[in-house]
Amino acid sequence: MRPFSKFRMKEGDVMIGSQVAKVIQSKNSAFPVGSHVVTSCGWKTHSISDGKELTPVMADWPKDVSLSLALGAIGMPGLTALYGIEEVLGLKEGETLLVNAAAGAVGSVVGQIAKIKGCKVVGSAGSEEKVAFLKELGFDEAFNYKTVTSLEEALRKASPDGYDCFFENVGGHFSTAAMAQMKNFGRIAVCGSISLYNDVTPQTGPYQYLTMIMKQLKMEGFLQSRWTHKHPESLKRLMAWFKQGKLQCREHVTKGFENMPAAFMGMLRGDNIGKAIVAV
Amino acid sequence: MRPFSKFRMKEGDVMIGSQVAKVIQSKNSAFPVGSHVVTSCGWKTHSISDGKELTPVMADWPKDVSLSLALGAIGMPGLTALYGIEEVLGLKEGETLLVNAAAGAVGSVVGQIAKIKGCKVVGSAGSEEKVAFLKELGFDEAFNYKTVTSLEEALRKASPDGYDCFFENVGGHFSTAAMAQMKNFGRIAVCGSISLYNDVTPQTGPYQYLTMIMKQLKMEGFLQSRWTHKHPESLKRLMAWFKQGKLQCREHVTKGFENMPAAFMGMLRGDNIGKAIVAV
Ligand SMILES: NC(=O)c1ccc[n+]([C@@H]2O[C@H](COP(=O)([O-])OP(=O)(O)OC[C@H]3O[C@@H](n4cnc5c(N)ncnc54)[C@H](OP(=O)(O)O)[C@@H]3O)[C@@H](O)[C@H]2O)c1
Ligand SMILES: NC(=O)c1ccc[n+]([C@@H]2O[C@H](COP(=O)([O-])OP(=O)(O)OC[C@H]3O[C@@H](n4cnc5c(N)ncnc54)[C@H](OP(=O)(O)O)[C@@H]3O)[C@@H](O)[C@H]2O)c1
Repeated sequence: MRPFSKFRMKEGDVMIGSQVAKVIQSKNSAFPVGSHVVTSCGWKTHSISDGKELTPVMADWPKDVSLSLALGAIGMPGLTALYGIEEVLGLKEGETLLVNAAAGAVGSVVGQIAKIKGCKVVGSAGSEEKVAFLKELGFDEAFNYKTVTSLEEALRKASPDGYDCFFENVGGHFSTAAMAQMKNFGRIAVCGSISLYNDVTPQTGPYQYLTMIMKQLKMEGFLQSRWTHKHPESLKRLMAWFKQGKLQCREHVTKGFENMPAAFMGMLRGDNIGKAIVAV
Repeated sequence: MRPFSKFRMKEGDVMIGSQVAKVIQSKNSAFPVGSHVVTSCGWKTHSISDGKELTPVMADWPKDVSLSLALGAIGMPGLTALYGIEEVLGLKEGETLLVNAAAGAVGSVVGQIAKIKGCKVVGSAGSEEKVAFLKELGFDEAFNYKTVTSLEEALRKASPDGYDCFFENVGGHFSTAAMAQMKNFGRIAVCGSISLYNDVTPQTGPYQYLTMIMKQLKMEGFLQSRWTHKHPESLKRLMAWFKQGKLQCREHVTKGFENMPAAFMGMLRGDNIGKAIVAV
């Protein structure tokens, strides 16, 4: 959400953000009192809506599954992972995939779906604890990008043959290093570039055109909203993987509405493992 | 050929280059004396070959068409233009296409094929004479990137609605400006990056990830050799367009084998309009 808050908001606006909310009063039979909805009405404790901006939580959401997952692995971030892999990368069994910010909401699902698809998965993250978490999730290789002496070397060591696919969450110099390790005809799904979001002056790096030509790389930026029509079906698949134990979900929960700004800034700093959630 | 000469050659190697050559002695019935072949045997007046590196000039090459076109519009550069447009961009009728180094061997064919396909075409080149040439070829808009006060403005003025497709020959800061003018879901075929080929230290520019994500852009590097199996069929189509007057071919001819280095350096400086040819 950082790119949106940076470019589309002005001072005084309600801060954007998604929530699972409970309907406590209703004149709309589509949203009965007591039901739950996913909505992007921002950082507010209570909201009034005409229903247009509300999505009912997936039908038959199992009672034993926390509703907060509708904001994470079985919600927008999970869908982002799924579409990046299936619609953008077209990841195939036996291929090697690289993902950065791998212990995050999107990245942790990316790696697990790639394992479900029979791929080798390499992930990078910003702490030893996150690296251990990635190993638990079944990643084949994982490293701490903050402590390796050379990114190039770490990437080469993790997959000496290079990478077929790269799920890009971070941007900047990580990407430059990763491009150099792509195989011929490699595909890159550009999902995020979190290392650039807080730039005051834009960061620069070497142009990658020659690498793109000589290796015939394909690179595509995407927003999960492109496939909104597939959401209901996709959420069912994510839920099924979760129930089968193939998709583990971890959340980083901050308690209290008043701690929202700190939680958001903490996420941008990398405090979170899995989806960053605020419980109100 | 500059990326290849830069990275794959060492001092003392024969300089790489393609030529149309006449067979003057032969022990191979596939290449009878007097026939013509296209070959990449480098900057040599005479070569000996076992035939493996030779391609016969297209069957039924019309007598009234200069054989040198087999090095230009009805040869590798023409094929590059065609594949970039059809295989990489998937250019569709009614779309707007941008091409840079537009007066060159590849660029001039790109623009003309895009016109054949019913598109609006914008081209940039490095002199007033080249701009006039582009207008002659039927480009809808053309500008001299060396004299405009702002690239961004020139691109916006040439197509206020932006660009569906961008055929990239130049790279560097032209690309940064062009990316900003792409429409949502724009496609970029990365064919060349001539502004970077002679870098001693790599040029840098602002990372474009956020633009790629927010506009959901697709970008693909390619080499024409990927579609070698389609060459015979494709050359026939290029020749047909030429005979129908839909594809004009201009050449920049330098005379004399000894002037080859000067011609090559001149091409990198932008001396050429159309394909740079050396007649020996
Ligand atoms: N295209 C879409 O439709 C779409 C949808 C959702 C999200 N996204 C994007 O996907 C990416 C991941 O989102 P998420 O929700 O899953 O967030 P997240 O990964 O849960 O949290 C962000 C993580 O990014 C890493 N990070 C923060 N600053 C960094 C920096 N300067 N350099 C490198 N890493 C940094 C931190 O992990 P480390 O400790 O590992 O550094 C942090 O934990 C973001 O770029 C987001 O904008 C895109
Ligand atoms: N991918 C492939 O398979 C493939 C195949 C063939 C060619 N290519 C590439 O396609 C591009 C065009 O090749 P071509 O054979 O058609 O060459 P060309 O356009 O006939 O000649 C090169 C032209 O590039 C322009 N140029 C030179 N230096 C420049 C700079 N620093 N900044 C901007 N423009 C510059 C000049 O025109 P201006 O006066 O307009 O600046 C020059 O006339 C090249 O990048 C080449 O490497 C790729």
